[in-house]
Amino acid sequence: MLPELADLPEGDDHLREQCLSSTKVHAGRFLQVMRDEVSLPDGSSSYREYIVHPGAVMIVPILDDGRLVLERQYRYPHHRAFIEFPAGKLDAGEAGITCGVRELLEETGYTAAEWASGGELRNAIAYSDERIEIWFARGLQRGERRLDEGEFLDVFAASEQQLSDWIRDGQITDAKTMIALLWLQQWRAGRWDLDWRPAEAWGAGR
Amino acid sequence: MLPELADLPEGDDHLREQCLSSTKVHAGRFLQVMRDEVSLPDGSSSYREYIVHPGAVMIVPILDDGRLVLERQYRYPHHRAFIEFPAGKLDAGEAGITCGVRELLEETGYTAAEWASGGELRNAIAYSDERIEIWFARGLQRGERRLDEGEFLDVFAASEQQLSDWIRDGQITDAKTMIALLWLQQWRAGRWDLDWRPAEAWGAGR
Repeated sequence: MLPELADLPEGDDHLREQCLSSTKVHAGRFLQVMRDEVSLPDGSSSYREYIVHPGAVMIVPILDDGRLVLERQYRYPHHRAFIEFPAGKLDAGEAGITCGVRELLEETGYTAAEWASGGELRNAIAYSDERIEIWFARGLQRGERRLDEGEFLDVFAASEQQLSDWIRDGQITDAKTMIALLWLQQWRAGRWDLDWRPAEAWGAGR
Repeated sequence: MLPELADLPEGDDHLREQCLSSTKVHAGRFLQVMRDEVSLPDGSSSYREYIVHPGAVMIVPILDDGRLVLERQYRYPHHRAFIEFPAGKLDAGEAGITCGVRELLEETGYTAAEWASGGELRNAIAYSDERIEIWFARGLQRGERRLDEGEFLDVFAASEQQLSDWIRDGQITDAKTMIALLWLQQWRAGRWDLDWRPAEAWGAGR
């Protein structure tokens, strides 16, 4: 009989990998790569290579008519454009909500009356320390977007049903965007709760 | 008024980034890092750094009583263990279903009578070309697992409700595992379809 989680040893001790030494093996303009020598639970040693990432924020903007604000952006590693929710990297020391407000405005021109936190996701746990905070935004007012230099992207609206169909059909495969649909469906079904507050109440700009 | 996708230019041409030159800037044991010079849609040039990844498979194993087979594994970049579905990298030239059958057996000891495809996800589109195939497995029979050397992980069972609660509470943040819940819920609600066949009918082992 397969055990349940409660039947297993508590905590991580029997799985832990301890750092023996840490070396930056690539210092790129965008990617920082570390190689650490680690000791494994059985006392043997091995290496772990991973990306050090500043973290990021995804914004799920909900229009007053219920439609969602999405983007289409070229993603060079895949040599094609992806449909995805707005997202951006944290500046050094920046709070997630501050980054969310900034990126929503820069990429789409929207400001939002209310924000709610959907926690976070870790998108590449084997080889990157990236975490992506999930923020929902509503009470949207449109203004001028302010793209970074060299940034090109389409902004458009779609219903939640379209989003779901596009994921089912494989037209959307971006992981964070798929997780946004999970959250939207759980929230609308009343299973998961969103706590809506003005950005300032979440500490934006501080 | 925000446009819909159908109102936007068709295709990627207005967003495309063209490769001007490509250089491998880090050849690690696990991570291969490329830096490409690219031309942007406005004719200016920039650089893109990204990981070249062989691709991976996630397996969502469903026990006859409806519970799911999960793992707890130490993920060094985050310095802690994560609850996640079984997954593994593709060997060179390996089909996704073959990898799924192999990884499920190696990591959990299970074989499955039937498999169904849930498409794929792209987990780090900004800086990795990784794609993760999503495979569901049922009709499970337990045998001996055969972990790779230096691989340590817990295997346990949990209900879909537990999985959902753990994601809502932030105890599970692994992106692929969150997407598995989206799929399970859509499938059980009759909204998304799974086509169940023996692994051989999907081309396993070929």
